[in-house]
Amino acid sequence: MIRHIYRRRVRYRECDPMSVAYHTFYLDYFEEARTEALRDIGLPYKQLEDSGIIMPVVEASVRYLAPARYDDMLEIQTTFNEIPRVRVPISYAIRRENEDLLLASGTVTLCFVNTKLGRPIQAPKAIRDVFVNQFPREAETEP
Amino acid sequence: MIRHIYRRRVRYRECDPMSVAYHTFYLDYFEEARTEALRDIGLPYKQLEDSGIIMPVVEASVRYLAPARYDDMLEIQTTFNEIPRVRVPISYAIRRENEDLLLASGTVTLCFVNTKLGRPIQAPKAIRDVFVNQFPREAETEP
Amino acid sequence: MIRHIYRRRVRYRECDPMSVAYHTFYLDYFEEARTEALRDIGLPYKQLEDSGIIMPVVEASVRYLAPARYDDMLEIQTTFNEIPRVRVPISYAIRRENEDLLLASGTVTLCFVNTKLGRPIQAPKAIRDVFVNQFPREAETEP
Amino acid sequence: MIRHIYRRRVRYRECDPMSVAYHTFYLDYFEEARTEALRDIGLPYKQLEDSGIIMPVVEASVRYLAPARYDDMLEIQTTFNEIPRVRVPISYAIRRENEDLLLASGTVTLCFVNTKLGRPIQAPKAIRDVFVNQFPREAETEP
Repeated sequence: MIRHIYRRRVRYRECDPMSVAYHTFYLDYFEEARTEALRDIGLPYKQLEDSGIIMPVVEASVRYLAPARYDDMLEIQTTFNEIPRVRVPISYAIRRENEDLLLASGTVTLCFVNTKLGRPIQAPKAIRDVFVNQFPREAETEP
Repeated sequence: MIRHIYRRRVRYRECDPMSVAYHTFYLDYFEEARTEALRDIGLPYKQLEDSGIIMPVVEASVRYLAPARYDDMLEIQTTFNEIPRVRVPISYAIRRENEDLLLASGTVTLCFVNTKLGRPIQAPKAIRDVFVNQFPREAETEP
Repeated sequence: MIRHIYRRRVRYRECDPMSVAYHTFYLDYFEEARTEALRDIGLPYKQLEDSGIIMPVVEASVRYLAPARYDDMLEIQTTFNEIPRVRVPISYAIRRENEDLLLASGTVTLCFVNTKLGRPIQAPKAIRDVFVNQFPREAETEP
Repeated sequence: MIRHIYRRRVRYRECDPMSVAYHTFYLDYFEEARTEALRDIGLPYKQLEDSGIIMPVVEASVRYLAPARYDDMLEIQTTFNEIPRVRVPISYAIRRENEDLLLASGTVTLCFVNTKLGRPIQAPKAIRDVFVNQFPREAETEP
């Protein structure tokens, strides 16, 4: 398992007439959080793209539990629960900084696509290795 | 069951470097589609809000099956499967105009909140009646 | 001069805690309006792009005079004041449907870029001709 | 004069099929930059709003000089050229981190509105004082 925390303020344009962050922007928060989580483990997404691999989103879901408000500093926790093969399910949890209350949780599942072939592929070994290095115990216990 | 079709073009700003509509915008398409579906059955959301009821989103999920591209005219089908009580689950299906291929499907669940009480409520009778009038057979067969 | 009117509702996600359309979205309204204006005169932007020409924005300005509110049906008037050569300045005026009050005005200036050359070019003759056909009197009086 | 630098990455959803940041998002970058600049001098916008003052945008303009690309770390420079009275013109310059090339420049002018009165007001003394403290020499030389 890999865990990463990304801090991000709620912006004015993201707040609706109820004075809370509009629900569609949570997918943006997830996007930013996973981008920084991938950069942090040594897999900047831009480098993936430059190497001919894109990672389109195949599924997304969000549960909205409590509202985020204007100017709140959010902590978006990104969790990779498994070493990716074909699909990469990534879990998220959003809280206000230094608070326990869960504001939202969700999952966004990506896949690997080779842009030349134009179709999904298995995670390339170089990418899997980056994850394996972050999952030492789990990797060791794989048969 | 109530079905409604909303037509909407994919805009340039919604397309990403893969030249397809970015996944976060599908929630925007759903929002526009349900707003027009509610208006169509006689429940403009603005009128609800003016009467002291808001409908925050409590859950959302999307499956992305095939990409929508710049300038595509989309048909977003909104389906109300049940007469709302506390929660209002609404289903969506997105296709290109005059094509059968399903590009995306999803569900967004709203609830009713009384802005004065500041908490979820049952669907007010006036709102349920609007739905009942659109669900004649199902309503008749309710025990 | 070419004039075009595009109708567009203000969406919930575009409204901020002051319950008015947030200022950044006016550039989106302008974008949609000019896209439909160009389509209307026979120059769908997608076709331009497919032919190897893109039209990046080089300047934009907006004056905000009165707020647009949630669910307002806006009329965005697009005006081409001249037959384009290198730059294409396009003017906009936003009003509520059937109202005289000007909510906002602005200008967005595009240019023509040949994607193969990667640099600005003069408006291709085929494009100028489309405009000339819409500016009959002005064209006739050109020396 | 007050200068502030805000660092902000270009996100994937902000990039269009030309693989550059779409022009509308520059107004978002300006918004974030001035919010952080105001916080930095001791005027968090949220606090202003809680005290009954809002600052709507009355004018905005942007010149786009060179494209910002996906994952670029931008430096957005916010400049307050004058101590605000009725209007607050704020200038912006966007560069890539550690580069001299100007990608975009612009101005966004805000005003002060008393939410109870519902109309523009002069900058309250407490707010002017914060600016005066940051403009020591200019303030001293005022007649």
